[in-house]
Formats: sequence, C-alpha cells, structure tokens
Amino acid sequence: MQFAGSHILSVHQFERADVERIFTVADRMEPYAQRRRITRVLEGAILGSMFFEPSTRTRVSFGSAFNLLGGEVRETTGFESTAIAKGESLYDTARVLSGYSDVIAMRHPAEGSVGEFAAASRVPVINGGDGSNEHPSQALLDLYTIKSEIAGRGRGIDQLRIAMVGDLRYGRTVHSLCKLLCLFDQLQVVLVSPGELRMPGEIVEQMRRAGLEVVESEQLEASIAHVDIVYSTRIQEERFSTQEEADLYRGRFRLNQSIYTHHCEPNTVIMHPLPRDSRDNAQELDDDLNDNPNLAIFRQADNGVLVRMALFALILDVVDQVDQHARDVNWYTARRF
Amino acid sequence: MQFAGSHILSVHQFERADVERIFTVADRMEPYAQRRRITRVLEGAILGSMFFEPSTRTRVSFGSAFNLLGGEVRETTGFESTAIAKGESLYDTARVLSGYSDVIAMRHPAEGSVGEFAAASRVPVINGGDGSNEHPSQALLDLYTIKSEIAGRGRGIDQLRIAMVGDLRYGRTVHSLCKLLCLFDQLQVVLVSPGELRMPGEIVEQMRRAGLEVVESEQLEASIAHVDIVYSTRIQEERFSTQEEADLYRGRFRLNQSIYTHHCEPNTVIMHPLPRDSRDNAQELDDDLNDNPNLAIFRQADNGVLVRMALFALILDVVDQVDQHARDVNWYTARRF
Amino acid sequence: MQFAGSHILSVHQFERADVERIFTVADRMEPYAQRRRITRVLEGAILGSMFFEPSTRTRVSFGSAFNLLGGEVRETTGFESTAIAKGESLYDTARVLSGYSDVIAMRHPAEGSVGEFAAASRVPVINGGDGSNEHPSQALLDLYTIKSEIAGRGRGIDQLRIAMVGDLRYGRTVHSLCKLLCLFDQLQVVLVSPGELRMPGEIVEQMRRAGLEVVESEQLEASIAHVDIVYSTRIQEERFSTQEEADLYRGRFRLNQSIYTHHCEPNTVIMHPLPRDSRDNAQELDDDLNDNPNLAIFRQADNGVLVRMALFALILDVVDQVDQHARDVNWYTARRF
Repeated sequence: MQFAGSHILSVHQFERADVERIFTVADRMEPYAQRRRITRVLEGAILGSMFFEPSTRTRVSFGSAFNLLGGEVRETTGFESTAIAKGESLYDTARVLSGYSDVIAMRHPAEGSVGEFAAASRVPVINGGDGSNEHPSQALLDLYTIKSEIAGRGRGIDQLRIAMVGDLRYGRTVHSLCKLLCLFDQLQVVLVSPGELRMPGEIVEQMRRAGLEVVESEQLEASIAHVDIVYSTRIQEERFSTQEEADLYRGRFRLNQSIYTHHCEPNTVIMHPLPRDSRDNAQELDDDLNDNPNLAIFRQADNGVLVRMALFALILDVVDQVDQHARDVNWYTARRF
Repeated sequence: MQFAGSHILSVHQFERADVERIFTVADRMEPYAQRRRITRVLEGAILGSMFFEPSTRTRVSFGSAFNLLGGEVRETTGFESTAIAKGESLYDTARVLSGYSDVIAMRHPAEGSVGEFAAASRVPVINGGDGSNEHPSQALLDLYTIKSEIAGRGRGIDQLRIAMVGDLRYGRTVHSLCKLLCLFDQLQVVLVSPGELRMPGEIVEQMRRAGLEVVESEQLEASIAHVDIVYSTRIQEERFSTQEEADLYRGRFRLNQSIYTHHCEPNTVIMHPLPRDSRDNAQELDDDLNDNPNLAIFRQADNGVLVRMALFALILDVVDQVDQHARDVNWYTARRF
Repeated sequence: MQFAGSHILSVHQFERADVERIFTVADRMEPYAQRRRITRVLEGAILGSMFFEPSTRTRVSFGSAFNLLGGEVRETTGFESTAIAKGESLYDTARVLSGYSDVIAMRHPAEGSVGEFAAASRVPVINGGDGSNEHPSQALLDLYTIKSEIAGRGRGIDQLRIAMVGDLRYGRTVHSLCKLLCLFDQLQVVLVSPGELRMPGEIVEQMRRAGLEVVESEQLEASIAHVDIVYSTRIQEERFSTQEEADLYRGRFRLNQSIYTHHCEPNTVIMHPLPRDSRDNAQELDDDLNDNPNLAIFRQADNGVLVRMALFALILDVVDQVDQHARDVNWYTARRF
C-alpha cells in the first residue's frame, strides 16, 4: 500500500509486504524510544488525540510516540458534554477537528465510527479502537512482539506455533491478530477457551482458508505444551450481563510458573494485550511469572511505541528524514531496563 | 488599542482599526495554519488553557493555534473537585495559575468571571467565553470569515447585507457579531427569529445608532432573498426549561439546498457558528448543503485558528518575528483540502 | 544523596546538604521561571504526569516546570474507568506507563502507593502527594519560600521562629515541613490549633529530639507575636464526617490585617500552602491582607515551579547544561509582577 497520507483503519488493508515495511521502520525507531537518541523530525506537527472512550495506555502510547518524533499533541477525552451531545454529526466533527492537526489518533465506542470519521477528515486518521471492531496498531504491536521475541532464535513468523488462551469470543485483540497471521505461512494456532467463549467461526474459517492449521481446545495444559508463544487474554467482564456470569469464566485458564515449568517447552514466550487482571479470582497470568525472562508482556507494551512511531513516520512520509533530525540524549537515562 | 500585554475580554474594546489590524495579522498566519510553513517564534512560551466549562473545538482551536506558533500548552478542564470547590476565590486562582504560563485562554460558565480573573492575572488573558456574556475570538473569526468569503468578489465589509437566522435571543455569537458590525458602514441586517427568540432590543438599538439598517422578520424565505450572507444558528435547547419548549423552535427555520436555489442570490455565503444540530428534528442547515461551495462553515472553523494565532502574536508582540523563525514543512500534507 | 536517576518520595530521604543543593539549583532556575530567558535543555524528554487524584495547581506546576526546561508533558487524570478498575496491579501499571516517559510525577489518594509504583517504575518518580502520607515537593517549596523571604534580612533558616496555625492534625503540608525543619538548628516552632486538631505527637517528639523548641497553643494572637513566619493552613473539611463538625473549626483562627498590625512584629512573613478558603465562614487569611507586602502566599506558589525545575534538573542530571541551552525571551513579558 501507499502509506503517505493514508488512514490506518483495519488490519485488512495490509498485505504481508506492508506489515514487513512497518516492522522495518519500527526497528529503526528503537534508539529513539529507548532514549539513546532524540529526533525532531516532526517538530511543528500536531497529533489530534481523540479518545471518545477512555484508554490510558493506548492514548499515552500514541502521544508519547508522537512526542518522540518531535511533534506536539492536542488531546480530547470524553465527549459527553460536547458537540456530539448537541446533535453534531460525526461528519461535522471530523471536518472541524481535522482542521486543527496534521494526523489524528482516535478511539470511539461504536463500531465503524472511526471509518466514518476518517471519510470526512482532511488529515490521516489512525484507528485506536472502534468498539469490538478493529484496533490495528494493537494487532501490529502483538505481531511485532512475536517477531522480536523469536528473532534471536533465528526464526521468523512463518511456521510458528501459537496458543491463544481465554476469552476468544469478545477479545478484539486476538481477532485482529488472527487476521494478520493469515498473511504468513504454515502457522499452527491452538485456540483455548471455554466453549461459550470460542473464537468466532468466520475467523477460524478465514485462518484455515489462508492455510493455517487451527485446533480448538478447552484444556490449557496440553494446549500449551508444544507452542512457541502463549498469548493469554483477560475475560472482558464488562461484556457480560452479570458479574456472576463473568466469574464463571474468570480464572478458568490460569498460567503460573509451576504450570509453565511442567508443561511448556523452554523459552516459550508469554504474551498478553494488557491489562491483565491481577485480582485473586482472575490471575490469568500469575504474578509469580514476573521474574520469568520469557514473560514478554512489558516488552509488548513498549513495542506499541515503536509501532506507532513507525505508523506516524510512514503516513507523514518522514521515514528517511528521522535520522537527519537526530542527536544524542543529554540527560540521565541509566535506570531504564 | 495597544495589543502587547493586553487582555482580550470583549468586542467592545476594539475600534475598527484594531479589527483590521487583527485581520491583517490573521492573513499572515495562513501559510502556517495550512502547514506549508512552520514557525517556532513562541518556542519556550506556555499557554494556560483553562476551560472551567467544556468546549472541545474552542479549546483545541486555541491550543493548536499556540502550537502552530511553536509554544506549549498546559490544560485544565473541569474544576469540580479543585480549589474553587474548596472555597478558593477567583482572585487567588488567577494569581496562582497566572504564574504558570505566559498567556491564558479561559472559558467559564459565569458572566464576568473571565474579567474578574483577568484583573488578578499577571499575564494576558483571552476570554474564550464567559456564560452568555462575551466570546470575542468567535465574533472576530465570524467577521474574518465574512471578509474572506466576499473578498474574492472585490468587496469589503461595508455595505454588506446579512441575514441572521434562528435563536437570536440566547445566541451569544450573534450578539457579539452585531456589536462588531457596528464598527462598519452602511450594512443591512435582517434578523429572522421566532418572536419569542428575537434579538435583545438594546443590541438592535445599538446597531441602528451606529447607522446600520436593521429589519426584523419571522419569515425565512423572503428574508434571505437579497443578502450576501446567511448566518444561521442553533436553537440552544439547554437554555429552555423543557425539551418540549425547545422543540417548539428547533427546526422552524431550516435552510436546505432547494430553498437556497429557489430563494437566494447566487453565491450567497452560508455561515454557522457550529455545532449545527443534525438531528432530524433540527437540521437548521440541511446535510444536502454539504457540497454547496458557498457553505463556509468549515472554513469558518478553520479561520478560528488564524484569528487566535493573530491574537497570540499581537498580545505577545511577536508579529514581526513570525517569519524569521519559519521554515518549510517537511512532512506529507497533501490530503488537506 | 545521589540525585541522578533517584526517586523523590519522601522528605526523609534528604539530609541538610541535599536540601541546600536543591535550593541552590532552584535559585539558578529563576531567570527561566520569570521568562527573562528560556532553556531547551530537556528538549525531547517526556514527563509522565499521572494524577490519580485531581490537583490542578500541583499538576500544572509540575507540567509548566518541565515545559520551562524544554520538555514535553503527557498527562493522565482520573483513573476510574481505566486499567486499575479492571484489576490491573500498580506493579503492571508502573511497568507499562514508565515505558512512555523519562520521568514521572504522580499523585494518588492511597498512602504508600507512589512508593509502590516507584519500585516497579523504570524511570525516576516524584511523589506529588500520596494521601495523607508525603508531598515532598510541597515541603521543599515551603522551606525554600521561608529561606527566600528572610534572605533579604541577612538571615538563614537556623534560629528562625515559626508559628503554624490551623489544622495541624490532618494537614499533610505542615507534617512534611516539620520533618524538613528538623534538619536545621535552633528553630522555635509554635503550633497553634484546636485541641482536637493538634500536631501528631510523634512529629512533635521528632522535632524535640532534633533540638527544636516546640510550644503548643490554642491561642492565636499571643502565638504569632514573636515569630518570623506565620504559616496558616486550611481546615480540611473533607476530612470530617459532617459539615457541622468541620464548621466547628473553620474560621476559628483568622488572621487579618488588623490582627497582624496589632500583634505581629513588622515584616512577619505570612504563608499558606493554598488553596485558602475565602468563604465567609472560613477566611483563615482575610482578603484584606492581599496588599500586605509580607503576604508571601503567591510567591510561595511561584516557588513551586523553581523547586520542581530543580528536582527535574537534578534527577535527570542536566543542572550544568541548563545555561548552555539558553537564550533570551523574544516575546512581551512586561505584565508579570
């Protein structure tokens, strides 16, 4: 695809070469994200960060990514008392607000709303999550993490074995990740969930048509025995009508250090889109995994900054200028690990 | 007036020469607002954006205007749980918060509050709306839009014919605009509203004393037949005690493409302070006008950035330095239209 | 202490030399805070401002301090609907959010929470207030104000006479200030409060062990007759179970110009952590003191910016670079007083 000036709305708009291009650019952002270097390539540019629905980490990740490229961020959070409540159409909102920035990152609770907004926007829009529909930068950072974690083993994404665990029915991140995986070859995917929270059939079908080997299971231990990656998810209790119904599922597939040691191959990578639920009755990833070097969940969050920097650099077409506007960091950064 | 260091509190503080000065400076801001050039003239300066009442577009417009001049923005929105709720006076709030910035843009629900704040502030304050009282930058951007839209026809503001339509009783923007129009010569103003929502008598009187020809009407079609500008407004339903009362008025003066074609002179400019109410029972400006090239409502919103940049440049006295701190934009901006 | 890379969590971590070092650096920040000069020393750095509990002035003071050093600020306010509500641990929140910035300023309603967060953070954390526990930058700015106000009289902090007035039981700021005072010699402290709101015994003990002379009193006029500083505080009505209970104490120790003139020595400095309660039934510092040149409360708020700039410069280890990245201010600043 042509990145310059494009909206980023869905994982469906990417071909394999596009994903690989994003990852190549993300790799080049590492010195800046890790504060060894700074770049001012987007000095003077403005990101419009519009979160019609709260999401601290996604919002701050986008904002910091733009700051790391030298740009400014103007934010809007919570739209209850604003123009939309007074009957303004999303078209008008988009026409007006897109006049105030050079690129927009937007989250909205309604499916399809970000696409509708983008159609009226005068600047590129990145979908930061529209209801249960799409969240492409999350899927990209998940796949980028998979690539990074296994790169040191001389392997690529093709032929990997991945277990996805938990709420596969409502979990937007696993849906988008599965769609991206379809761009790669000979992967084996094990889907572990309660029967009621199975991956939607059309996504399973889509993966099989794309040549992936897909197995569904309700049993954790056997399913994670022969995989390279365990991707765990939170039971989205807010999707259930009662707390009791949610509690039926929360805590059903807990991974802890003991299970990991007894069942997983050495160096199996553990991922999670975060937040993980650390309350006693949940603990889908136990705290005792925190010292496990294969727990990649915080590197995964860090990778979000790299991927979002890459998206900004690509759609604003400054990839080749980033290093020209760079210099060394002049403050103390030694605590970072 | 002397702009450097001054508060901008009311349209009453301007003479005609002041308005023309602001517009001349606003014109010079266009290359920066349209992202052909960037300027860093206010690098290191801080705008205190204090919105004691929400207003997304005004807040973001001020913030982006300041960013476009190279400055930083520190924001405060919603004061429910802060010092004022603990009994702090506006005097104390102003003395303290004005120590944190170089200039302040402030909105507050109470009439006169911004002036009271400004009296205690140690830095210049721009009134971003104080209840039903004043919102001078909105009036300036409206008049700037009028000037810009008819400039291509070799005309100026003098002798223009303007229809104002809708809620003229509670609409703060039309009140302020009328006051600014009094600085110009030989204008004809048609005021179209339900009898109960007529323009306040003292403003009509003021316009007549200033030499404007003012006609009041309750009939839309005839009133917009021989004007250069139709300025439509939203029925401010939040000003009525019941929804039923508001519904009596909403949708009473709808302008759509068919009415426009049959009744207006060619190239009549359509304006609106936004947000327009696009719900079925309102539609004061129908969506079918969206492709009409004379629908100026989004250019009007864009002009808000120019006018606010001009105000900042004038009161911080950097007008003549803007171009010295400028350079070309280095990112992709082609989608903008 | 070693400042570079350190957390600033408690006044207990400072020795006298540390406090003096902070004040020396704060002095050097004055030209920048007063907008005679700007510095870009932290250009490219990001402050994560995380206010889990609202506090407009502390939040804006930290943010402006960072902007004045040339850095960017990414803010989070109010965490109701975010990850913590979904069961995320403070450990996870800290690990993730600390990946988005170079330094963090954090306020949280729970005692000890900021320390817990800091233990998991990958970047230095400054405690901006954790419940009734600590707020070290407030204590530092209070002491810095004391030093500055009496410096013109050729005196230092040693041997000063200070009266603290009001709610000494719940007032976090006086607790922290008392702890800092223990680092200095031969001070006399008069504690004036209703019996029910006395300073906690362990803090009184601590001061006495440190060699301070401490007197407790329930009588205002006699207590402020022979002191250099009167430090007044607000009755924290939110700490009482009923409004009636709070009203018993509010307004009990009012200082006004008449009392000041009749009882205080000339040039007695008046301080207050702000906000002061200016409602009729409170008025712990009467508005008629506003023209008293010894009312230091707004200089005190201004000093917060200096002290916070100093903390940032110290923990990011750029003190000696600040002046190298400086230049004169190019905009109009004459209104500041």
